[in-house]
Amino acid sequence: MIIDCHGHYTTSPKALTDYREQQIAASANKLALPSPSQINISDDQIRESLEENQLRVQKERGVDLTIFSPTAGAMAHHIGGLDVSRDWARACNDLIHRVCLLYPRNYAAVCQLPQTRGASPASCVEELTRCVNELGFVGCNLNPDPSDGYWDQLPITDRYWYPLYEKMAELDVPAMIHVSCSCNPNFHHTGAHYLNGDTTAFMLFLQSDLFRDFPSLRFVIPHGGGAVPYHWGRYRGLAQNLGRPPLSRLLDNVYFDTCVYHQPGIDLLLEVIPKKNILFASEIIGAVKGIDPETGFHYDDTKRYIESVPDLSQADKDQIFFKNALKVYPRLERHLAATRQLHPGEQP
Amino acid sequence: MIIDCHGHYTTSPKALTDYREQQIAASANKLALPSPSQINISDDQIRESLEENQLRVQKERGVDLTIFSPTAGAMAHHIGGLDVSRDWARACNDLIHRVCLLYPRNYAAVCQLPQTRGASPASCVEELTRCVNELGFVGCNLNPDPSDGYWDQLPITDRYWYPLYEKMAELDVPAMIHVSCSCNPNFHHTGAHYLNGDTTAFMLFLQSDLFRDFPSLRFVIPHGGGAVPYHWGRYRGLAQNLGRPPLSRLLDNVYFDTCVYHQPGIDLLLEVIPKKNILFASEIIGAVKGIDPETGFHYDDTKRYIESVPDLSQADKDQIFFKNALKVYPRLERHLAATRQLHPGEQP
Repeated sequence: MIIDCHGHYTTSPKALTDYREQQIAASANKLALPSPSQINISDDQIRESLEENQLRVQKERGVDLTIFSPTAGAMAHHIGGLDVSRDWARACNDLIHRVCLLYPRNYAAVCQLPQTRGASPASCVEELTRCVNELGFVGCNLNPDPSDGYWDQLPITDRYWYPLYEKMAELDVPAMIHVSCSCNPNFHHTGAHYLNGDTTAFMLFLQSDLFRDFPSLRFVIPHGGGAVPYHWGRYRGLAQNLGRPPLSRLLDNVYFDTCVYHQPGIDLLLEVIPKKNILFASEIIGAVKGIDPETGFHYDDTKRYIESVPDLSQADKDQIFFKNALKVYPRLERHLAATRQLHPGEQP
Repeated sequence: MIIDCHGHYTTSPKALTDYREQQIAASANKLALPSPSQINISDDQIRESLEENQLRVQKERGVDLTIFSPTAGAMAHHIGGLDVSRDWARACNDLIHRVCLLYPRNYAAVCQLPQTRGASPASCVEELTRCVNELGFVGCNLNPDPSDGYWDQLPITDRYWYPLYEKMAELDVPAMIHVSCSCNPNFHHTGAHYLNGDTTAFMLFLQSDLFRDFPSLRFVIPHGGGAVPYHWGRYRGLAQNLGRPPLSRLLDNVYFDTCVYHQPGIDLLLEVIPKKNILFASEIIGAVKGIDPETGFHYDDTKRYIESVPDLSQADKDQIFFKNALKVYPRLERHLAATRQLHPGEQP
């Protein structure tokens, strides 16, 4: 079986963005916010938005299940206050839930958090709990820069974030570290801000005692870990210079996805990072949509690169393609059991 | 011959940092700034600071010449106004000049620019001109984030920066893109801010028409290009999606150094980036000082990794170890001619 741990609903029906625009306008003009319940999207509209897009590509590439979340770039946590973020997260998460109800065998849900520039991460606990306990979500996306490009909030390893981590640990759900859009003209959204966010998060983990305080907490760093695997020697050396534990200790809690869009990058990732820490992902209809003229295939067809890595054993492939996802997202097993009539613990 | 294009005077005598501390205190208290001419450093102090440090390591590793500049992390362009930056740059550059006078066969000089948060890059033209025309410097370091961690200035591809580029083009000197320290607790100085700065700069170049406006301008992106070579497929795809020219066009103006501190990273760099765009560098006594227990050698002994890359021809090695440096820093040839009694155009 093949699980893609990194998909966003980038093709969601227009009514969702229409609502968001009304919400932003109302917030800017200090008017009453529109209610998410006003969003009118039919099941057929959801089907149409997916069957010609993500679902088609999943089938073409042989991906069984995608861990699916709202569009990362549209989270835009710098906009408005807590009320705006709460309604927007709820609207996006409810739509993801409907996707999973319509296609339970193809999608498992990860939620957007109602993070807000200047508001405590504790304000995310309620929506996370609702999504996991009431809607069966298996994880969340965590934006390490709710300012969206100015990095003016406290680092994700600061105790300020601990109320959220306490709830994540209690619910036993991981977070994918994923920045949103960039308001900073220095940082191109997908070409700089995304990768910088990944690199920044890893170094913060390296510097901190977060996993001493939360030994079971798990994070997935997407886009192949930003710059980190390419500079693995630098990070080993920095850990050593700073008197920090060896990086192998971090790898009890930190995982990398495979959203690296060429063969040499995937080769390096699989050479440097233990296979137990790599989760298959492609982020389709995402940052890089075209066909690579050098290969004739889509840049984001990452399964092809992994299958071309020499000397990769079947056991390694099983880890990367589904076993690690089941380990990092333990609630996936229940989801699979419910949708595929598996017995708990049975191999998918 | 072997030229290391990336060395900083991290072991400079204490009198330099004493001066800087006095300067910062005076600036903070709105007192008269101390004059750089008060800095009292003897030739012997310079010799001592280098012979047991950078010079020793250079000799041990068989490096002939280092392109040497003031400590990047100490540039700290966010501190004080134009007067502070001018004095500090001048003090640092004059000291680098003395290093090159004492060890003309071992060092060629690159200058710190008196960049200032909130001041036009045009304010750097005078010091750049002095260093190149009067002191024989061969290039400069350019900080793409004079806020030192908050990225609140205009991108380096904005026309705001053009007066500096006009002078660089006229003098035919390149810049190494190099951030300084980080005041932002989100960004570890050498573990996040450095690599993010590199990645950010490359994406800005990709998005802009800077090299249409300055066809001869040349930049070296250090630390192996941040995240860029590892994500080369992503950048090829982004260029394609954005309707930008292929990356090969950028490579007429953009170069990468080899400060990547493990074998797989160097292997990827040399596989992905054309050899004509890679300049040997190690940044010794820099970001990562220890010995790698996996190899028994220093992390920053990058010559060793390059020499271990399979199937690297002598012609490739010559390009990486010195020919590309002579092309990117054309004033180096004069420096070599003067210090090694070479005729102009003669092979070093």
